Amino acid sequence: MAKEKKFVESITSMDVDFAKWYTDIVKKAELADYASVRGCMVIRPYGYAIWENIQKILDQMFKDTGHENVYMPMFIPESLLQKEADHVKGFAPEVAWVTHGGNDLLSERLCVRPTSETLFCDHYAKIIQSYNDLPKLYNQWCSVVRWEKTTRPFLRSSEFLWQEGHTAHATEADAKEETLRMLNIYATFCEETLAIPVIKGKKTEKEKFAGASETYTIESLMHDGKALQCGTSHNFGDGFAKAFNIQYTDKTGKLAYVHQTSWGMSTRLIGALIMVHGDDNGLVLPPAIAPIQLMIIPIAQHKEGVIEKATELKNMLSKLARVKIDTSDKMAGWKFSEYEMKGVPLRLEVGPKDIEKNQVVLVRRDTREKIFVPMSELETKVPELLADIQKSLLEKARNLQNSKTFNAKTVEELKELLDKTLGFVNAPWCGELACEEKVKEVAGASSRCMPFDQSDDADVCLCCGKPAKANVIWGRAY
Amino acid sequence: MAKEKKFVESITSMDVDFAKWYTDIVKKAELADYASVRGCMVIRPYGYAIWENIQKILDQMFKDTGHENVYMPMFIPESLLQKEADHVKGFAPEVAWVTHGGNDLLSERLCVRPTSETLFCDHYAKIIQSYNDLPKLYNQWCSVVRWEKTTRPFLRSSEFLWQEGHTAHATEADAKEETLRMLNIYATFCEETLAIPVIKGKKTEKEKFAGASETYTIESLMHDGKALQCGTSHNFGDGFAKAFNIQYTDKTGKLAYVHQTSWGMSTRLIGALIMVHGDDNGLVLPPAIAPIQLMIIPIAQHKEGVIEKATELKNMLSKLARVKIDTSDKMAGWKFSEYEMKGVPLRLEVGPKDIEKNQVVLVRRDTREKIFVPMSELETKVPELLADIQKSLLEKARNLQNSKTFNAKTVEELKELLDKTLGFVNAPWCGELACEEKVKEVAGASSRCMPFDQSDDADVCLCCGKPAKANVIWGRAY
Repeated sequence: MAKEKKFVESITSMDVDFAKWYTDIVKKAELADYASVRGCMVIRPYGYAIWENIQKILDQMFKDTGHENVYMPMFIPESLLQKEADHVKGFAPEVAWVTHGGNDLLSERLCVRPTSETLFCDHYAKIIQSYNDLPKLYNQWCSVVRWEKTTRPFLRSSEFLWQEGHTAHATEADAKEETLRMLNIYATFCEETLAIPVIKGKKTEKEKFAGASETYTIESLMHDGKALQCGTSHNFGDGFAKAFNIQYTDKTGKLAYVHQTSWGMSTRLIGALIMVHGDDNGLVLPPAIAPIQLMIIPIAQHKEGVIEKATELKNMLSKLARVKIDTSDKMAGWKFSEYEMKGVPLRLEVGPKDIEKNQVVLVRRDTREKIFVPMSELETKVPELLADIQKSLLEKARNLQNSKTFNAKTVEELKELLDKTLGFVNAPWCGELACEEKVKEVAGASSRCMPFDQSDDADVCLCCGKPAKANVIWGRAY
Repeated sequence: MAKEKKFVESITSMDVDFAKWYTDIVKKAELADYASVRGCMVIRPYGYAIWENIQKILDQMFKDTGHENVYMPMFIPESLLQKEADHVKGFAPEVAWVTHGGNDLLSERLCVRPTSETLFCDHYAKIIQSYNDLPKLYNQWCSVVRWEKTTRPFLRSSEFLWQEGHTAHATEADAKEETLRMLNIYATFCEETLAIPVIKGKKTEKEKFAGASETYTIESLMHDGKALQCGTSHNFGDGFAKAFNIQYTDKTGKLAYVHQTSWGMSTRLIGALIMVHGDDNGLVLPPAIAPIQLMIIPIAQHKEGVIEKATELKNMLSKLARVKIDTSDKMAGWKFSEYEMKGVPLRLEVGPKDIEKNQVVLVRRDTREKIFVPMSELETKVPELLADIQKSLLEKARNLQNSKTFNAKTVEELKELLDKTLGFVNAPWCGELACEEKVKEVAGASSRCMPFDQSDDADVCLCCGKPAKANVIWGRAY
């Protein structure tokens, strides 16, 4: 029996079932597919093309700030992972262990890297001798493995792709500056490229990275009001340096420990793109990251001159944008749905009547607005529209975030707010772990961060009523 | 006690100890370092920058021929690896096995991918339905693991970086065409970008890839006369398709099996660059792949105007080449050695006397020739010299290969030739495994390939004296 390829089907509405809507888009926009290994995914060409654009832009931002790429092994010997006490405690429960090479039992188990601090430290201990060798500003693009219990494509998977920066500095101040520099680069990238507004802040002790002295984060709000951590930047102080004995000779000839940082962003950002910009017709991509910015669809393409004109337009516009043309024998309506599903920012329709009038139809993916444009104006109109879509998506996302950001005075009030409308809730906190745990227990919310912007009144703790130490943003998170 | 950074030391001469010379360059040119995991390496910034250039150029060649990048999981369940009989037999003895996730024993062992045919097949079986879905032209950049007994950085390591293309086609002819197309792309890349001449040919049954119906290869000759396989391209026919049930509906509505290929090149190419172009002063890089094409070294840089002029030249030349300037307080002589070790194709020296005469000194890395160039001619002279170095390196390597390529009639003659001067030896072969094994036993040589160029007389087999089926290139290989 012959197999049939199905036409584009409608997807679950996000208001009906947000989780199902999400996986429908992952699947139908052909971003990823499930693999035969539990919790792992196949990143398909369209999803990977988004990742390649993320890589390209971020990598340039890293290089412009003096960072160099390297590649560390994917395996960490058990003894090496154990060198920093907090770090091993945080990661050991969720790593994959290699015990055999071919038919031989290994003398020491190796874990597949869940993150590479220990490997970078091991290397830095060898190559750093003097103050002349500092700073070391390294980054790597690779995949990491964390044996997660429940997984979802892009958001939480047993294996994911990411970049991890690992730097070593002469002084505490230099390391702190680097930690914040990279956080700011992440924030700029999210807002300017992904059109995702973020809140910058510091994690509480409970939520910080295993082995870090401070963790900074950028947090964003998804369409359903749940929070997503988009990137983190950690200041390690000299904790790892002491555990791994990374010392350098300073200008006075004395030995001193280096100060270190690490920072990472991952394929999780593709999940954020879906959940911040997507709608019931599928993905909506900001032009800056879209693999295809403009899709040309010839109408009545069997008629004389249509494909020729469409191709001519493609050649003209390819200098200004990432343009593709679909001349397959599928129906135009099928093509419209397909590229809406894939979130292509602009569609250009051109048929015999348009050619007669020397015009085309442009359709925006974000607003679905139809715009008739004389062909002679296309070269100015297309870049203009792409820029406007980029700007509009950020504004729209910012408005959504603002409309779902609330203030609470007590943990009960916080719970009530979140039960009604998920979002970010500002509330003051005393700084004690017990109160943070109580918020989790009572309201099912975690501290997302202590935002840099502390202009909200922080008078008394939402739990214990003692004087507040900081204002915290709470939320239910992915 | 303070640690001291050592000055550049001389390396072992390649004539004294080629293996030591090789590892000296790997280490002193800061390409890679040993890791704490057996047989794994840390690819350092300079080595990784070469790999990034390889990736960038190859990736564009793949995309220009219609290929798309994807990402498959790094784990393969044991049952999936076993689906194609020859394939599992070839790879199972050298894979790393994951048995535990966190504290839990896995219900099925997972191997870390040694190559990803089985994963691509598993995915293709799901996404290929009709002839409209063909061809599928996928590639991925990733790391793979093969538990090797003896390892050497870049040449043979337990983990290495590579690209693996995996394609599915409607017909046998299409798959064959793709296999050869990619082999040709590899050959073009090696010759035009890496300046490494290669011989294209087909592997014997004994040497072909586990599961392939035919394996094509490009073979190159190192400075010591040993052969290195630089890339391979495999035609699978419909063998994997039958094992994984990858069928499509053809135009007549009937189900048919797809025909598949795979092809790969790896970080081993960095080893080839060292061993083809390097000399007793270190690495020599072809400009097309060099992370730094021109290094500017100010002479007497404390004198007024020197650093300013050197920086001015850098800004001017940066539009034409990858240029860096070293204004560190190290001695000029140290800098000369350092960048010779790193194989930077061109060095520009500029000091007070040069500035007075409105000239600079250019020094070629390949010939170490000193050239005085008026500043006004730099913008034409630098690209000219870089192009000439690129061309010269290929010619030099080709001459070396020619001078070490011999003909033999018998296996004894072959052994004698190789014992005297390592190289490629052409000799006719009857096509029988027994004779191929005897050549290995008697002369310690393996069949590198049956070259496409079969113009050499192939009369009788070098072992058994029966009529020859093909001319074979034999050699001792890395």
